[in-house]
Amino acid sequence: MTTHPFDEAITLIPAGEDLYRGTTSPHYWNAISPFGGTTVATLLQAMLSHPRRLGDPLAMTVNFAGPIRKGEFAVRVHPVRTGRSTQHWLMEIRQGDDAEPAITGTAVFASRRDAWSDTESTMPVADAPEGIARYASPADVPFLQRYDVRYFGCDPLSGGSESDTQCWISDVPPRPLDFPSIAAHCDTFIPRLFVRKGGPTPIATVSLTINFHADGEALKNVEGYHVFATAKANAFNGGYYDQEGKVWSRNGILLATTHQMVWYRDQSL
Amino acid sequence: MTTHPFDEAITLIPAGEDLYRGTTSPHYWNAISPFGGTTVATLLQAMLSHPRRLGDPLAMTVNFAGPIRKGEFAVRVHPVRTGRSTQHWLMEIRQGDDAEPAITGTAVFASRRDAWSDTESTMPVADAPEGIARYASPADVPFLQRYDVRYFGCDPLSGGSESDTQCWISDVPPRPLDFPSIAAHCDTFIPRLFVRKGGPTPIATVSLTINFHADGEALKNVEGYHVFATAKANAFNGGYYDQEGKVWSRNGILLATTHQMVWYRDQSL
Repeated sequence: MTTHPFDEAITLIPAGEDLYRGTTSPHYWNAISPFGGTTVATLLQAMLSHPRRLGDPLAMTVNFAGPIRKGEFAVRVHPVRTGRSTQHWLMEIRQGDDAEPAITGTAVFASRRDAWSDTESTMPVADAPEGIARYASPADVPFLQRYDVRYFGCDPLSGGSESDTQCWISDVPPRPLDFPSIAAHCDTFIPRLFVRKGGPTPIATVSLTINFHADGEALKNVEGYHVFATAKANAFNGGYYDQEGKVWSRNGILLATTHQMVWYRDQSL
Repeated sequence: MTTHPFDEAITLIPAGEDLYRGTTSPHYWNAISPFGGTTVATLLQAMLSHPRRLGDPLAMTVNFAGPIRKGEFAVRVHPVRTGRSTQHWLMEIRQGDDAEPAITGTAVFASRRDAWSDTESTMPVADAPEGIARYASPADVPFLQRYDVRYFGCDPLSGGSESDTQCWISDVPPRPLDFPSIAAHCDTFIPRLFVRKGGPTPIATVSLTINFHADGEALKNVEGYHVFATAKANAFNGGYYDQEGKVWSRNGILLATTHQMVWYRDQSL
């Protein structure tokens, strides 16, 4: 049995209290640094493997403060305050002797319990992914080979006045959904500026938040290896835009909602 | 000239490098701790007054790890990495000799620049606030007296299958909009669970993120002292629900979008 490249990418070696060591993966390399989704998933993996972890991920915010270079990195995840049902974390990633972290962030883990529950955001009706062609991205970066994306009812690079897209996403090769892969999926959306402009322009995620709506128990009811994902921007303004996304399992369980702010450069009118 | 109670509430005294001291305000007291919006605004105020601050707020995440007690508190805001156009911050609030912080968080400040810009989320059409009655909240906590909320096209406590609301919000007495007040407005929405249940149940914000879409230059074009705000939940699940909101100036400038995860208790079916 070979290890899935995603599991390889988020592999961590314990290196002391609250400390782990990882290595960037060539399979999930982006243009000049690792795919942000694997960075987020790696931080989550560190907390999930931490001996003091309580419950399941509820919310996490990851800030991309500086580039991660190819090679080794150190992950520090510290449970700063643990209550009866919630746990608060600080996180960072550093490389070598760098004085400043490349990544900062916070997370909240929580134990869910019996309570009145209802999901308002139901999954849009869509054709099955098997009947839709895989999207052939014009961009040639390694991590895009690791995601099978199938758009439904939209052409992501048609350009136009609205940035909304919806699509199926699955790992390549297919892999069961878990918290790290859901977190990574939250950063796989084609950048909203590309959608508006009909092609690539320089962009970089600055800050990404994920709110998880399913806990470990709920993940047991997930069917299939695909997620259905919708995303849109609210505003592009002076070099920064936002992206809001929702991710459901194939059988309609709302897994996560996510929001990011993105730096961009586009001098066109 | 008397100081506005909001400015009084977020007043900070420098207390060392990266350190400020504040005091909870009786005017913005909630049931058992300060209104979260003033806590968020106080953290923002600390960064805005910091001698090393670059640009304007772009994104901030505040985690409510433990209760803040009445009285003095210490705010620490540390610029952990400053680039050419973005600056990353760590934030926390502690009280007395507490070993653990009550509040943790991160923020990103940024300088916007000339770039192609477009706002997709335009303000809904609504009657002017002057023609709508101020909402008389059934809850009797001090901070609610400091916000004039006027719902448009919805009764926030009617109960029902959807949690969407839209309303005008302004400070009491009226106060010009700035970053701290916009941040506080992001936490003034009536809890989504109250909307669904038609009345109050125990809730507490766990983690709140604000993405700012207007910079200091754009704020100069804001007209009036009201914001128009929409909010909804995606899911209530096992004791935690989310809330997504949007905040516009009266003349339609998208000021911020905001997302929070909220703890709740409700054993009803």
